[in-house]
Amino acid sequence: MRFTSHTSNDGVTERTFTLGEIPGALWTPDDTQPRALVLIGHGGGQHKQAPGVVARAGRLAAECGFAAAAIDAPAHGGRPRTAEHERIVTEMRARMAGAGDPVPLLAELHTLLAAQVVPEWRSVLDALGDMGPVGYWGMSLGCALGIPLVAAEPRIRAAVLGLSGTSLASAEAAAGVTVPVRFLMQWDDERVPREDAMALFDALASGEKTLHANPGKHEDVPALEADSALRFFARHLG
Amino acid sequence: MRFTSHTSNDGVTERTFTLGEIPGALWTPDDTQPRALVLIGHGGGQHKQAPGVVARAGRLAAECGFAAAAIDAPAHGGRPRTAEHERIVTEMRARMAGAGDPVPLLAELHTLLAAQVVPEWRSVLDALGDMGPVGYWGMSLGCALGIPLVAAEPRIRAAVLGLSGTSLASAEAAAGVTVPVRFLMQWDDERVPREDAMALFDALASGEKTLHANPGKHEDVPALEADSALRFFARHLG
Repeated sequence: MRFTSHTSNDGVTERTFTLGEIPGALWTPDDTQPRALVLIGHGGGQHKQAPGVVARAGRLAAECGFAAAAIDAPAHGGRPRTAEHERIVTEMRARMAGAGDPVPLLAELHTLLAAQVVPEWRSVLDALGDMGPVGYWGMSLGCALGIPLVAAEPRIRAAVLGLSGTSLASAEAAAGVTVPVRFLMQWDDERVPREDAMALFDALASGEKTLHANPGKHEDVPALEADSALRFFARHLG
Repeated sequence: MRFTSHTSNDGVTERTFTLGEIPGALWTPDDTQPRALVLIGHGGGQHKQAPGVVARAGRLAAECGFAAAAIDAPAHGGRPRTAEHERIVTEMRARMAGAGDPVPLLAELHTLLAAQVVPEWRSVLDALGDMGPVGYWGMSLGCALGIPLVAAEPRIRAAVLGLSGTSLASAEAAAGVTVPVRFLMQWDDERVPREDAMALFDALASGEKTLHANPGKHEDVPALEADSALRFFARHLG
């Protein structure tokens, strides 16, 4: 793991790094050893330093004394697309422009990206070393890629997921998730049908899981849910 | 309003009262003027001083500095059943013993009780006088009776509801609820089908409403939801 930049702001240090081909960012509190580590999975079309990712990471560091890490998912941020990514994205755009249904292709893309990103996240965890208990926070694409990661990685002890459903994420992988989960859905999500979101929540094998549903579209998650997610991580990792 | 008993415990005073035929209880913090008032609607077969009611009232007083009030619903606690209550309850028991569906009768009972209790709660509010902003907290029967109350009573500014559905509570009344609502459902509720609970949440006209769903049966609401409800009231009434 090679650190490539270093910025300190309001008591939080942000470092960018590369690990092989994987570009990442790490946030840590300036004045204490991190008590835990939360992995943040960005949304579709976003990247490791998208504003929503940076905001969550900053609060985890400043308010909880946790470290946070994010990586660019394959084909996102600065990462190249393979021929297979290109094929799916091109076909998806064609369907969106015409009358076709792009959802099965988006699901295919998520499956492909998940197979790539799960071992990448695990190698990042290995390289970061022990920073205390580990959590995962990912919405939308970050949920679809996070579910197989949380199912596969025993170091992850709690997860905040949501804004996805069984048409875009693997219900089979969800059945392997057993840690406490907070699951967010938007009641009027224009991208995820209610039934699909609830079926994905239903599929999680966690004994402790809570669904939070709020009115509004995909992007309209109320700010209070971030406060609530911070309390959730503080409780389970603190 | 006639106060009939007075007990102080751990900084919280509990007074029982009667207002006409209505038996009630009022909890207040010992060391401060109440900053707000939360009305607590008990569950079916319970009463104004059921353990769950007393526990919620005590926390509202001790942790939020709020007053809390509860009354026995008609046909509950020390209150007599009318001939109509008796008819419905007898028929409901007969159906539960046989193969019939008791739900339509339970819904009929809820409708009858709601028509009686809404003016009762409003007269209690009048008699208590101004104790600050008012909230309502009721699950199950307390939700079915609370929805028409919250819809009718402009002094109520926020409500925690749940464990009910459109087969037991009025979706029409829910369409008159516009204040912020926290709505709880149990994912494996043996008394309220998921679809009914979600349809009731959907029917609420509130711009700010959040559904919290947890695994487990009707009685298995996790303790964390009470902490969360206290924060909800502190935010909206504090």
